[in-house]
Amino acid sequence: MADAAVRSKKPAVHKRTPAGGAPTAPHTAAEASEPRIDVNAVTDLLLGTWAATRREAREMIKDPAFWRIDGQPMPEHRERVLSQLHLLVEHGGSRRAFPEEYGGLNDNGANLAGFMELVLADPSLQIKSGVQWGLFGSAIYQLGTKKHHDQWLPGVIDLSIPGAFAMTEMGHGSDVAAIGTTATYDPDTEEFVIHTPFRAATKDYLGNAALHGKAATVFAQLITGGVNYGVHCFYVPIRDDEGGMLPGVTSEDDGVKGGLNGIDNGRLAFDHVRVPRFNLLDRYGQVAPDGSYTSDIASPGRRFFTMLGALVQGRVSLDGAATTGTALALYIALTYANQRRQFDSGAGTEEVVLLDYGKHQRRLLPLLAQNYAQFFANDELLKKFDGVFSGRTDTPDEREDLETLAASLKPLSTWNALSTIQEAREACGGSGFIAENRFVGLHQDLDVYVTFEGDNNILLQLVGKRLLADYAKQFKGKDAAALARFAVGQTAGKLFHGAGLRQLGQAVADFGSTARSVELGLREDQQHELLAGRVQQMVADVAAALRPASKLSPAEAAALFNSHQAELIEAARAHGELLQWEAFTDGVNRISDEGTKQVLTWLRDLFGMHLIEKHLAWYLINGRLSTQRAASVSRYIDRLAARLRPHAQDLVDAYGFEPEHVRAPIASGAERRRQDEAREYYRALAASGEAPVSEKSLKKK
Amino acid sequence: MADAAVRSKKPAVHKRTPAGGAPTAPHTAAEASEPRIDVNAVTDLLLGTWAATRREAREMIKDPAFWRIDGQPMPEHRERVLSQLHLLVEHGGSRRAFPEEYGGLNDNGANLAGFMELVLADPSLQIKSGVQWGLFGSAIYQLGTKKHHDQWLPGVIDLSIPGAFAMTEMGHGSDVAAIGTTATYDPDTEEFVIHTPFRAATKDYLGNAALHGKAATVFAQLITGGVNYGVHCFYVPIRDDEGGMLPGVTSEDDGVKGGLNGIDNGRLAFDHVRVPRFNLLDRYGQVAPDGSYTSDIASPGRRFFTMLGALVQGRVSLDGAATTGTALALYIALTYANQRRQFDSGAGTEEVVLLDYGKHQRRLLPLLAQNYAQFFANDELLKKFDGVFSGRTDTPDEREDLETLAASLKPLSTWNALSTIQEAREACGGSGFIAENRFVGLHQDLDVYVTFEGDNNILLQLVGKRLLADYAKQFKGKDAAALARFAVGQTAGKLFHGAGLRQLGQAVADFGSTARSVELGLREDQQHELLAGRVQQMVADVAAALRPASKLSPAEAAALFNSHQAELIEAARAHGELLQWEAFTDGVNRISDEGTKQVLTWLRDLFGMHLIEKHLAWYLINGRLSTQRAASVSRYIDRLAARLRPHAQDLVDAYGFEPEHVRAPIASGAERRRQDEAREYYRALAASGEAPVSEKSLKKK
Repeated sequence: MADAAVRSKKPAVHKRTPAGGAPTAPHTAAEASEPRIDVNAVTDLLLGTWAATRREAREMIKDPAFWRIDGQPMPEHRERVLSQLHLLVEHGGSRRAFPEEYGGLNDNGANLAGFMELVLADPSLQIKSGVQWGLFGSAIYQLGTKKHHDQWLPGVIDLSIPGAFAMTEMGHGSDVAAIGTTATYDPDTEEFVIHTPFRAATKDYLGNAALHGKAATVFAQLITGGVNYGVHCFYVPIRDDEGGMLPGVTSEDDGVKGGLNGIDNGRLAFDHVRVPRFNLLDRYGQVAPDGSYTSDIASPGRRFFTMLGALVQGRVSLDGAATTGTALALYIALTYANQRRQFDSGAGTEEVVLLDYGKHQRRLLPLLAQNYAQFFANDELLKKFDGVFSGRTDTPDEREDLETLAASLKPLSTWNALSTIQEAREACGGSGFIAENRFVGLHQDLDVYVTFEGDNNILLQLVGKRLLADYAKQFKGKDAAALARFAVGQTAGKLFHGAGLRQLGQAVADFGSTARSVELGLREDQQHELLAGRVQQMVADVAAALRPASKLSPAEAAALFNSHQAELIEAARAHGELLQWEAFTDGVNRISDEGTKQVLTWLRDLFGMHLIEKHLAWYLINGRLSTQRAASVSRYIDRLAARLRPHAQDLVDAYGFEPEHVRAPIASGAERRRQDEAREYYRALAASGEAPVSEKSLKKK
Repeated sequence: MADAAVRSKKPAVHKRTPAGGAPTAPHTAAEASEPRIDVNAVTDLLLGTWAATRREAREMIKDPAFWRIDGQPMPEHRERVLSQLHLLVEHGGSRRAFPEEYGGLNDNGANLAGFMELVLADPSLQIKSGVQWGLFGSAIYQLGTKKHHDQWLPGVIDLSIPGAFAMTEMGHGSDVAAIGTTATYDPDTEEFVIHTPFRAATKDYLGNAALHGKAATVFAQLITGGVNYGVHCFYVPIRDDEGGMLPGVTSEDDGVKGGLNGIDNGRLAFDHVRVPRFNLLDRYGQVAPDGSYTSDIASPGRRFFTMLGALVQGRVSLDGAATTGTALALYIALTYANQRRQFDSGAGTEEVVLLDYGKHQRRLLPLLAQNYAQFFANDELLKKFDGVFSGRTDTPDEREDLETLAASLKPLSTWNALSTIQEAREACGGSGFIAENRFVGLHQDLDVYVTFEGDNNILLQLVGKRLLADYAKQFKGKDAAALARFAVGQTAGKLFHGAGLRQLGQAVADFGSTARSVELGLREDQQHELLAGRVQQMVADVAAALRPASKLSPAEAAALFNSHQAELIEAARAHGELLQWEAFTDGVNRISDEGTKQVLTWLRDLFGMHLIEKHLAWYLINGRLSTQRAASVSRYIDRLAARLRPHAQDLVDAYGFEPEHVRAPIASGAERRRQDEAREYYRALAASGEAPVSEKSLKKK
């Protein structure tokens, strides 16, 4: 949508085969300026497998009724978002995930793809929709059975039953297994008694709890016959049709939040509230009229994680929404940077557009590369999610992989959203702080994405534990001698890397290195080797450090684990970065248009180098990069940034946003018009002969 | 103010002399747990030279009338903050900086110290006060002369003339020299004609412009007799007493911002607005009735920078306010982390308080160390400011040093504020996102500190240029042969570092190193050597890279500079970090109480190590650290964090905040009471014999 004149060339597609046809970067300025991307084809790539649904959602939210109004007081904002949810129902936006018999489309991937786009309209709309259909509705659908679906899904889908998802408690956020709420079965009345035994067990931060919710899916310890069978989910009505609280249920309002103020978050407490036995969502655990408990899953732990796993879609959805929100911020900041002029360059010529400054390229372009990687990774995640939830690939292994993938990607994309939006806002100076230019609202709303639906650090810790378990599997059944040989190999590898640097042959290659040889040594294969090798070694190092734990007391073992907690989280982060890089690379390798492939290969290289630079100290300490090669990484990034600079507008145009999605005045072309007007004023003044002379020139005379 | 029971010991002061009395860290757990800080003495240290004024300001803002109300709609918030300014006048808070003859105290240091504390009440109050008295009032006072003071200062001080500081334009933020507004002298009427010649020259983002300002200090190109004498400042009335715009002046509202919505930021445009010749604030440049221009400062460039330099106090003030705001976030997050329990440790015992997790110590304690450094550095800055502005040390060199110091520290402290507040908010999970717990409001309000009063990157670039100039001075008058010898020495030094590592003797010392030897090698002197050496080499490297510029065309030279812009900015950042570290170290070395000195030395070490870890790749690439020593830095940080953990509550208590400053419910002790209630419930349940048994234990039977 940006002024076509912004580009140094029209985005025509040049067919060109680089030497050897390999998807690697060229080395001369001429090569660098030649290829152009096919913007529309890249849009298709970024929108991914469910592009049609995304386009449908984007079309719908062109209606200003869906847009966030900056500074709208909280009470009005909450009502507005509720009305938007009704509008969404009218547009058929709420039913995609549900079965056909309830008017749904049974299309899980499309459902999430559509919801992710709502972030462009108002993140409160995206999250309140997520609460209603992704959490409350999904709990009924995924954890309940046919009788529950018949009873409640129609009302969930048409929003006649707005609901809260009552999992989190004041005293327990991410540690769901330890929640305090109890659901005690009373065989005399065939009812469960839902109870909040102490203040810290109050359900908290629940969307729809403060005002709009008529029911809640309440997670509680299921107790029957004096036995606690662990956390299960119950359908609990909370308000009557006039909005009054039902007996025994109390609600408090969480009040103003850092963002997402279109959602009525609140608390719920239950004072011996009785619900029929029917209301236990009993797909994974059943209680008979006499109170006897049955479940297909014998292990309480596995049953718990199966139930939680059924709700993974929240994380998939946040990963995508964070990626799209980040893209919007980059679109705005890079479009502005291509129009805004500030300072002359020192060469006495006219003022320079921001994106021609080295620092400006450096601060924004690696983040653009990162965001592209996130798009590709999110599509992989969405495909895996759709496979499992459609039943096509619903195996325990696939479910576990899906959960690990979601837990790897959601932390990275949501953190990246905050840091990228912030950098983008700063790159636009004071204009970036004005709400109408979108950055500050996006940052405020997306802030909580990093700690909800699983705190990012805790998710990464889960991933880390999975990585450790996979690592340990390699040694299963091996005898002590084999393990000892392995341990020696590890140490030798480390010493070898640290001392000789022979494995990558860098010491020789880099002595007297040129830019070209550096780039040759940091191409796709080497990037992969560096990124993947880091994950492997970090996991191996933590595993080695934790090995003595089996001989320690539980308290000592816990202390040992604690002292390596931060490293384990870092290993999981490295794993997530590798996944993003691999997804990006796979995406690039599917491109047939050579110009597009070339530019996106540079962008992928920039992402790879950005990751390697971020962890450069690790690569040096562990002997994976020579100091010479490490020193060249930053320069290589500078070169890649300069090479990509002419393509920056194309690359953000390829997000496919339309003016109704962007809305930011600074990315509307107004800045260019102002700059042009100012330059025309000075040109005319100079031509008139009436321009004041400068004091300096006067002194020279 | 936190519960005394939080601490593992009462904060009594233990007198103890560590081995040798050296201000360095001990090496055993016993040593580590022994010393305690004297909390009150540390409060005195942190409050610094103007502690009395700070305490006075903190006492004043205990009045809830000064507090930010979360979610208050913008119009009400703006009126509230205006009324707070009047309240401030009543308390005598507006006059400290002004001369005695206008009822002032002529106390510049105290003035800024007092204003900084207002951030605890509402950052909008701090900044709107800064606009009125620090910018608008200071422009009149610093850039005007006696006649202007007599005319306007009383009204400025008592707020009968609310004013805007009209420097920034839509088209020019940090590049003030290039602003488009003109002030053309008309000798016939002895008036200046203030004019906005095109849209981009509209003054923008001005506090008091949208609603409350009656006048503005307008920066414009002074043109007389057909000559442009550059940017000067003019006093321009903009509204009548009823709030109507004066003829030729138009105002627009900037609307909702990311924060600071208690301030009525807006735009001002002037259509040939005439003001008397009198209204030129003429301390540094005068226009006679006939239009002839005079100035004591012959160089237009130096005159411009002298005028801007007179307004340095904004940066000094932001550095302090950002430091205090960061302290508040750390107080809240660390107090909560000392009370909140989450997950059992895996040892099957009770749940662990957050601050006992390795990751939690890692994420917060280095930020605490950094914030302490900022307090010490800000006091140094404030003392230098007071020296110059009181006239005691008002020399050109001191002014330049003051400006460089402010430009070095303000970027670091304002960026640190955002990253620390964000980390603190995330460390409190969902609670951190609720507005009443303060983090989100602080982040939103302080966001713009990083780009106003000089964009942080541009300030650091200024510092970088100063560093380059100082570096070049070393070679002034040296002949070519000497320079050549120097160049060789540089290269040799680099090779020497890179290859042999002999200078620090690390390779030998670290072979088979123990934790103790690592710590011995990273003490005060070595920290200083590493930090200072980095600044020196970074500057030397950029200087060497830019050396060919003198032989290039202006355009080529500009391109060369541009390609090293990011590195120059990094060198300036390193310089700022060194200054903070030095200030912290000087502060620690003034402490006499041994326990306090011990703990603060660990904290200073943590700050030093945190900086070195951040730049570890640089130290490795440049041969300043061996890989072995570099690998040990992170472990040393872990040990320091664990050693400081028992002192964390003391260290944040030493900020001296009272409940009226903190206000966050999660830091009020409520969390502890909830946790205690929950644990008592389970204890009583277990004692009753009626606790449900777990399914797991059932299966075991």
